[in-house]
Amino acid sequence: MSVLPPALTKLIEAFGSLPGVGPRTAERYAYYTLKHGQQSSAQLADALSSLHEGVSYCQKTFMFVASGQELSDLYTDPERDKQLVAVVAEPFDVVALEKTGQFRGTYHVLGGLVSPIDGIGPESLHITELVKRVGDDTVKEIILATNASVEGESTALYIQQQLAGQKVTITRLAQGLPIGVDLEYADQITLGRALENRRAL
Amino acid sequence: MSVLPPALTKLIEAFGSLPGVGPRTAERYAYYTLKHGQQSSAQLADALSSLHEGVSYCQKTFMFVASGQELSDLYTDPERDKQLVAVVAEPFDVVALEKTGQFRGTYHVLGGLVSPIDGIGPESLHITELVKRVGDDTVKEIILATNASVEGESTALYIQQQLAGQKVTITRLAQGLPIGVDLEYADQITLGRALENRRAL
Repeated sequence: MSVLPPALTKLIEAFGSLPGVGPRTAERYAYYTLKHGQQSSAQLADALSSLHEGVSYCQKTFMFVASGQELSDLYTDPERDKQLVAVVAEPFDVVALEKTGQFRGTYHVLGGLVSPIDGIGPESLHITELVKRVGDDTVKEIILATNASVEGESTALYIQQQLAGQKVTITRLAQGLPIGVDLEYADQITLGRALENRRAL
Repeated sequence: MSVLPPALTKLIEAFGSLPGVGPRTAERYAYYTLKHGQQSSAQLADALSSLHEGVSYCQKTFMFVASGQELSDLYTDPERDKQLVAVVAEPFDVVALEKTGQFRGTYHVLGGLVSPIDGIGPESLHITELVKRVGDDTVKEIILATNASVEGESTALYIQQQLAGQKVTITRLAQGLPIGVDLEYADQITLGRALENRRAL
């Protein structure tokens, strides 16, 4: 004898498959959806159903695009500098960089980071397409905007090696103290990096 | 010019309406759903679509039941003592109590707690049905199993007043130190309650 009706158990299981959602959170989502009437759950169900047919990837930058669109607006926009390319791991990194409002170049989404432990080799990322793009668009600068993690660093190093010999400047995002964080709370690696990369005023 | 395709923005918004889900978490859910193929999102969409038609409430205990079922199995089960009733705020409190495996009585779900600040008065809870049930089922003991919060306490007090004059024992869940928690980390109210309710060995 199960305590909950099958329709509810099914939804709790489905919510539980989302990343970082444990049984308690899944129960909470399911109960909320139940309490907030058919309209809110229909909205989420519709959005899920039309997700895959509505989203595609840019053939050049591998950023999300609406289905039927071949190239991202972030690439085709004539105001954007195609000779300046920021290389990021995931599409949402583009969203984060766009929010700064300070970047007028274009993007290249790798689709992940090199991670031997997870079986992700460089061949499963969009690196050959990046190398080709450097030639096609006569790219002048590549900003390696991957995370300051082991995977981010090794992916950046690999790309640097692949681009060796090409006439392109390769830069990396600055590492140092995050804004608004007290020096005494910064971890030692960050603080060491901030010291190493100190700037003359 | 939006950075994300509309199908994705729509899903992020829908996920963002779930309780405790901020924009970053909603993005993460949406991206995960996108990456994990059409099957997992179809599963969640199906579960959502069939939720409201699949779930109903027990006419006696107000616990979830499968649609078409009038009474909860937790009530109709002849092994369960109908003269012992645990009163809880929400249906998932029943799930929590069932997990202990120690309760063989029946339940009564109030559907919330008295909370003037949120505009929830006792008349919007299933309290009159509880009072009626005490007579109908000749209930011998009511366990007020509401939270040890201000709302939980005042709801318990209100129910106690409503049942005054009826021949029924009213009990409340024990309050004290949670198992596995160090005494020095317990908050002062809990510790005070534990001291007040100390037991002779």
